[in-house]
Amino acid sequence: MLKIKIVSVGKIKEKSLKSLIDEYVKRLGRYAKTEMVELSDLPVPDNPSAGEITAVIEKEGTEIIKHISPRAMVVPMCIEGEKYTSEKFARVIESAANTYPEIVFVIGSSHGLCDKVKQMGNIKMSMSDMTFPHNLAKLMLIEQIYRAFKINNNENYHK
Amino acid sequence: MLKIKIVSVGKIKEKSLKSLIDEYVKRLGRYAKTEMVELSDLPVPDNPSAGEITAVIEKEGTEIIKHISPRAMVVPMCIEGEKYTSEKFARVIESAANTYPEIVFVIGSSHGLCDKVKQMGNIKMSMSDMTFPHNLAKLMLIEQIYRAFKINNNENYHK
Repeated sequence: MLKIKIVSVGKIKEKSLKSLIDEYVKRLGRYAKTEMVELSDLPVPDNPSAGEITAVIEKEGTEIIKHISPRAMVVPMCIEGEKYTSEKFARVIESAANTYPEIVFVIGSSHGLCDKVKQMGNIKMSMSDMTFPHNLAKLMLIEQIYRAFKINNNENYHK
Repeated sequence: MLKIKIVSVGKIKEKSLKSLIDEYVKRLGRYAKTEMVELSDLPVPDNPSAGEITAVIEKEGTEIIKHISPRAMVVPMCIEGEKYTSEKFARVIESAANTYPEIVFVIGSSHGLCDKVKQMGNIKMSMSDMTFPHNLAKLMLIEQIYRAFKINNNENYHK
């Protein structure tokens, strides 16, 4: 069974958001072994310099990379990434499932994602030109992954 | 004070999603008189014909139009709409606030939105090439509206 892992920086505090994400993790379980890995946000000084932000992003990147298996397909989520329709994304997942035992999606912290992680990406992906809170992006992403499996299995799912 | 209205077809059943949206309605209240209008989904027969779907969409459109004030700026959400960054969307809201007393965003049912409502749009808008459940789209939209006010007021807000 394909493994889907979403590695993100920052823990979800809102109970309601957590319960919506948990519901999709449960539903996805029919199609893929699903794992959410939430790493701790690292402290950033007030009014940080660009260098201080880069240092935090790099430290976060080092933690992220520990959770990426060398055999996995890696999909960093970033603004400059590819934009897919849900149908095209479903085909991306389908073709990845034929090649890789695991797909790892990575959502950085609000400061961004380090270049090293971006460079590990087999593809980079963006869901919107708009910026969403990273925790909401997690819900959006897992919904799209679930939708992709519904599409690939020709199952009905609301639009 | 500017009025923001989100007219949508389909009521939110998930308590968690409702509570997240309610939280943004509350926060938005600082900047705009905010109102969510949720119209009932109309029944669609099993395996509906294209004509049956069009008929439902048109009936839903008639109900939607009742909630659109003639003085309002109208923004139908649809896949062929304009895609904005959050910053550009903030400028759209700012400039609308100088011209209109009210902005009405319209989210159709899962069957779509009738042409009549689309034609009433001063602009049409799309948040993503991906299809999201309409209830999740409501959360995404209200978050972006809130973000727009934070941007326009030069207030800090997480990315």
